[in-house]
Amino acid sequence: MTGRLIGVGVGPGDPGLLTLKAVDAIKAADVIAYFAKAGNASNARTIVAGQLNGAEELPLLYPVTTEIPKEDVAYRDVITAFYDTSAKAVAQHLDAGRDVAILSEGDPLFYGSYMHLHVRLSQTYPTEVVAGVTGMSGCWSAIGTPMTQGDDVFTVLPGTLPEYELERRLADANAAVVMKIGRHLPKVRRALDRAGRLDRAIYVERGTMANASVMKLVDKLDGCAPYFAIVLVPGWEQHP
Amino acid sequence: MTGRLIGVGVGPGDPGLLTLKAVDAIKAADVIAYFAKAGNASNARTIVAGQLNGAEELPLLYPVTTEIPKEDVAYRDVITAFYDTSAKAVAQHLDAGRDVAILSEGDPLFYGSYMHLHVRLSQTYPTEVVAGVTGMSGCWSAIGTPMTQGDDVFTVLPGTLPEYELERRLADANAAVVMKIGRHLPKVRRALDRAGRLDRAIYVERGTMANASVMKLVDKLDGCAPYFAIVLVPGWEQHP
Repeated sequence: MTGRLIGVGVGPGDPGLLTLKAVDAIKAADVIAYFAKAGNASNARTIVAGQLNGAEELPLLYPVTTEIPKEDVAYRDVITAFYDTSAKAVAQHLDAGRDVAILSEGDPLFYGSYMHLHVRLSQTYPTEVVAGVTGMSGCWSAIGTPMTQGDDVFTVLPGTLPEYELERRLADANAAVVMKIGRHLPKVRRALDRAGRLDRAIYVERGTMANASVMKLVDKLDGCAPYFAIVLVPGWEQHP
Repeated sequence: MTGRLIGVGVGPGDPGLLTLKAVDAIKAADVIAYFAKAGNASNARTIVAGQLNGAEELPLLYPVTTEIPKEDVAYRDVITAFYDTSAKAVAQHLDAGRDVAILSEGDPLFYGSYMHLHVRLSQTYPTEVVAGVTGMSGCWSAIGTPMTQGDDVFTVLPGTLPEYELERRLADANAAVVMKIGRHLPKVRRALDRAGRLDRAIYVERGTMANASVMKLVDKLDGCAPYFAIVLVPGWEQHP
């Protein structure tokens, strides 16, 4: 009997946004696995720290790649090899009959790193995915901003897109979230301005944490933002 | 002292996808309010039934509008008056110092009916929103389908859009969800076909329930779908 692979969404950061099913899966698992940068605490593990009960832990530590440009094929090769190795480490536990819960910030199948293990293992091992609250839901709930209603078109865009693509897509949606802001902030702001949406845009940093920073993007005068900052453009413009 | 308004996301249907915070909010509230159709059980109330501990309940029953076309201004007026009346009923409890939890399927600020109360009351009363797992996350997790990764552009479209709009937008996103399928199914299928995405599309009915129906859309030969069916078009096409 092989063990089960369980992708567990742990939500956006607040341990209270764990689901009952996530808590049960974490408490029942034989092994708790999570991705982390070497030398850094895993955010996902921090979120579930209060639920751990001594099960074996399997940290999957990203290789240090600071010297390789992300566009380089060598970068892709290193990362692919890392996910292959990680999947093998998880498979060893599954082969030994141990259930492995993979912690995933937010929702596992929505931009989650868990997916790299899912595509490598779910054809071979019994697999379950526990949906989670996404980071963006955590952000707009924390600030109480209605995002979408009725027939709104909603879109999620990476800040990495070219400026004209951002502008075109921001003008074409009722509501939008721009992720991975980081060094792209000035470009994202220009695109929102030309799309006529800058006045609605809200800048959110560490959205669901105690030290969150939230402001109208038009009021953010510097061009500095961390990679995980997001910009919300609420829809439902004609609400009563 | 007025009471607090709490918009509580109860997730997509599985009571296990309630968050710890939602459970706490429901158990602590003086009044549990929810929208429902007269004569029908509220889905949101059904999801939390196991958590209720005798608090007062405030069902907010939609007016019967079957004789008024939805495009009619009279329809909008009836619905607006209904939300006004509902907000007043909630406000009476808040004025009396009672905390009111408004149950909301999925995530409250993402296409949720809770928002109609939020915009009417949150300027006046202390308000908190508890994020929830969305219906779409529940669907793609239940079937284990990776949706978005890396720099994917993701979009949510209502099936009510004109066919050429659906086609254009489906061709323009890496991953998409089409909601409110119902009688729009044949149109959605044609739009996906012309956008070159029909082969990837997955039809999901009652996604997170025991009697879920899931199939490749290309294999769904009839044109019948309930209003709440959704179509998933997964992204991450170049995954390793």
